Amino acid sequence: MTSQALFRATDDPERITTTRVRRWNGAHATESDDALAVEEPLEIFLGSTPLAVVMRTPGHDDELAAGFLYGEGIVRSGADLLDLLLWQDEQGRFAQNRVTIRLAADRSITTEGWQRQFFATSSCGMCGKASIDAVMQLAPPLERRLEVGADVLYALPDRLQAAQDVFARTGGLHAAGLFDLQGNLLHIREDIGRHNAVDKLIGRALLDNALPLADRLLVVSGRVSFEILQKALVARLPVLAAVSAPSSLAVAIARRCNITLVGFLRDGRMNVYA
Amino acid sequence: MTSQALFRATDDPERITTTRVRRWNGAHATESDDALAVEEPLEIFLGSTPLAVVMRTPGHDDELAAGFLYGEGIVRSGADLLDLLLWQDEQGRFAQNRVTIRLAADRSITTEGWQRQFFATSSCGMCGKASIDAVMQLAPPLERRLEVGADVLYALPDRLQAAQDVFARTGGLHAAGLFDLQGNLLHIREDIGRHNAVDKLIGRALLDNALPLADRLLVVSGRVSFEILQKALVARLPVLAAVSAPSSLAVAIARRCNITLVGFLRDGRMNVYA
Repeated sequence: MTSQALFRATDDPERITTTRVRRWNGAHATESDDALAVEEPLEIFLGSTPLAVVMRTPGHDDELAAGFLYGEGIVRSGADLLDLLLWQDEQGRFAQNRVTIRLAADRSITTEGWQRQFFATSSCGMCGKASIDAVMQLAPPLERRLEVGADVLYALPDRLQAAQDVFARTGGLHAAGLFDLQGNLLHIREDIGRHNAVDKLIGRALLDNALPLADRLLVVSGRVSFEILQKALVARLPVLAAVSAPSSLAVAIARRCNITLVGFLRDGRMNVYA
Repeated sequence: MTSQALFRATDDPERITTTRVRRWNGAHATESDDALAVEEPLEIFLGSTPLAVVMRTPGHDDELAAGFLYGEGIVRSGADLLDLLLWQDEQGRFAQNRVTIRLAADRSITTEGWQRQFFATSSCGMCGKASIDAVMQLAPPLERRLEVGADVLYALPDRLQAAQDVFARTGGLHAAGLFDLQGNLLHIREDIGRHNAVDKLIGRALLDNALPLADRLLVVSGRVSFEILQKALVARLPVLAAVSAPSSLAVAIARRCNITLVGFLRDGRMNVYA
């Protein structure tokens, strides 16, 4: 195994690095250090089968792999997992960007066509409705809508932000936080990809045998798209709140599947879309 | 073919839709309309082979499909394309979310393993360096670095923003703009996914036989990650400027491949990373 450090590590070697940058202000330039969010590829293997490469911010890679497989419907519960391995070379050094998952002996799960699930549902030229049907093949709608008080929701962004470091608040990382119904923060994960931050939270729950997340609230720092709703539905999360805007398809899935979807949650205000 | 409208269309039926929303301000709630960025799946077929489903904002789907295939190295030039079709049903209605590309007769391009290209380069547990090597299998570094005056760059965000509609500026859509070396805006594309907006611009150039983009500047409204740099390199774009932050891997690729990378380009300031 060979590897090459591209940047000098900081006190947070995994998620943030520094590099020299030329800062221009009008016609004047100065050299200084700048913090960057680290982005590296994680290879996810299912046994000896390479399954996916996910560009992500390092850290909590076991959670990311578990959450990714769960969100895709390949792994249904912690019982499906035999183990989750980091790779080692002959000298016993760990490969930082590769995770191998082995399934329990009594599980035989085919990965053939898992990326093609969309096509199977689409006889019509795919529409938003077909996307929703595809998601509901992974998981049915929630049975009923959960009600949460506005005051509980209003408090969540500040709690999420307080748990982030300064860099994440000001720059390059998305945050996702898992809260209980009283609004207490249970876990927070940060990543250059907001879907990765959500996968890490759900993967944590899978590894803790804490799924489904039927009595939890998920808060994300950015926008909400189709794939975040898919992950929430599969994990049975009843409430999803975002600091920014949802997409049309996110709203449609939330309404169809009894997920409470809140957008623009900030400064004591919010929009309830579903 | 059946389809179902999930939302009432507005005057911009493709990219923006409206929906009823409950706006909470403290303890008070009112009902009103809210604008949403449209997100729908686009199926990309290569002949009869389903290749990918891309979640995107509708519009310029031919460009998106062409740019996607180009960025993945499946199509190398306009000459590789025989045609690009929208699907029709028996009644002659177009399927809005499906595009089929047929290759020129003398091109036989296998798609086997194109999603696996990363793995082929990775004997070591993948590192950032291996990602860069994988990108450079698609395209070599630019031969030399292009210099552009700061004044030209400072003017670009305002021109990009002036060409966006109000919704995109305030809410749910990313923008990408292609400029000439004098800073004149040539094309702008908007999408919920910033990589899609870039694919649409590059696909436009492919369909116009305007590749490579060796004398063009690309400006994106958000952050810059690995995949945006990959697309820029394959299209031979010498200068990439972003209103927000780059990732560590974006900076590494830019340095290795002689792409000038500018971040935080706003208010007469910028950081030059490479």
